Amino acid sequence: MAQVDFPREIRSLIGELKRLPGVGPRSAERMAVWIMREAREVPMALADAIRSARDAVTSCPACGFYAGAEEGCAICRDPRRDPSVLCVVEQVTDILPIERSGAYTGQYHVLGGRLSPLDGVGPEDLRIAELVARVKGGEFAEIILGMGSDVEGDATAHYIVEMLHPLVTTVTRLAQGLPAGGGLEHADALTLSRALSGRRSV
Amino acid sequence: MAQVDFPREIRSLIGELKRLPGVGPRSAERMAVWIMREAREVPMALADAIRSARDAVTSCPACGFYAGAEEGCAICRDPRRDPSVLCVVEQVTDILPIERSGAYTGQYHVLGGRLSPLDGVGPEDLRIAELVARVKGGEFAEIILGMGSDVEGDATAHYIVEMLHPLVTTVTRLAQGLPAGGGLEHADALTLSRALSGRRSV
Repeated sequence: MAQVDFPREIRSLIGELKRLPGVGPRSAERMAVWIMREAREVPMALADAIRSARDAVTSCPACGFYAGAEEGCAICRDPRRDPSVLCVVEQVTDILPIERSGAYTGQYHVLGGRLSPLDGVGPEDLRIAELVARVKGGEFAEIILGMGSDVEGDATAHYIVEMLHPLVTTVTRLAQGLPAGGGLEHADALTLSRALSGRRSV
Repeated sequence: MAQVDFPREIRSLIGELKRLPGVGPRSAERMAVWIMREAREVPMALADAIRSARDAVTSCPACGFYAGAEEGCAICRDPRRDPSVLCVVEQVTDILPIERSGAYTGQYHVLGGRLSPLDGVGPEDLRIAELVARVKGGEFAEIILGMGSDVEGDATAHYIVEMLHPLVTTVTRLAQGLPAGGGLEHADALTLSRALSGRRSV
C-alpha cells in the first residue's frame, strides 16, 4: 500500500519552497505546514509581496539599482548625494553593503555581472556602454571600481580602466588587504602580499 | 544622509519572508534578492503555489487530514486501508510521521490540538464530539491513542479513554520507552521508568 502523502497542491508548494536559497526538503515541509496553519491573510500577504516586488520594482535606467513603483530610485533621486564620484559595482546587491559601510555618498553604476569569457560573458553583456556614455555626459571627478578581488573582478576592472582612461583622470579601485578584525595567522599568502604592496604611511 | 535601502516593495517582501519558520533577517534578504533575480516565472510559481495550497486544500470532514481539490482525502478514499483500526492524533502533521514508519495502515482522526486548561483549550475546542460520533457509527475493533507523552498528551488521552470506554472494548496508547538507537546513558529517568514498567517478554 502506498504511503499517504500531502495532497498535490501542498507537494507542489513544497517543491517551489525548496528552490529558495538555503531551504532543504525538511525546512520546505515545515514552511508548507506553517503556510497551511497560519491565519489565511499571513501566507496571502507573502504571495502578494512576491508578486508585487517582481511586478512593481524595476531597474533604474541610470544606475541600475532597484526602483520602487512610487519612490523611484532612492540613489538617483537624492539631491544630497555627491554627484562627482561614481562607484562601479558588479551586482545590484553590491550597493547595500557599501551603503551600510557608511563610507560612501556618491553615485553608483551597476554592470550586471563581470567579464567571464569562459561563461560567454563579454563587454556587450554588461552595462559598460551605458557607463562610458554616462561618464562622457557627466562631470565625474573620480570613478571608483568596486569589483571583487578575484580573477574575473581583476579582468573586469582592467577592461573598464582602458575604456575610461581617455575620459576621466582619476580611476581608483577598492583597497585590498587584511579584512577588519582578521589576524595575520588567518590571512592567506595572496592577501598578505597585497596588504604589503598596498601598505600606507601612518 | 539616510542610508539607501531597498524600495518599499522589497522591504515588505523581506518582512513577510522573515515570518516563515527558521528564516532570519539575513536569509529573508537573500531570498528576496533571489526572488528579484530569478526568471519571473519562478517566484510567480511560488506565489501561485502558496495561494493555491491555501485556497484548494481543505480539511477532510471525516478524519481531518488535508484533502486536495481533485484527489480528496488520500486516507479516507483508499479502500485498501484497514477500516477496523482508528488512530487518534493531536495534529494533522502527526499523520505523516506515522505513515512514514510504515507500521500503520488504518484510519485516522485528527483532534486539532490537545486539552490544555491553562491555554483555555477544552474538549469542545477539539474534534472529540466528532470522534465519539464516528466511533458510535463505525465498527472499530481498536482505537489507538497517538498523543504525545507529555502532561497534556496524558490528560487528553485520559479524557478520551473515559469518553470511548462505553463504546469500544480495545483502546490502546502508543508505547513509551527507549527511542530507537538511544543508549541507556542518554535516557532520562522518566523515560527509563516508563521503559521498565512497559517491559515485554522476549
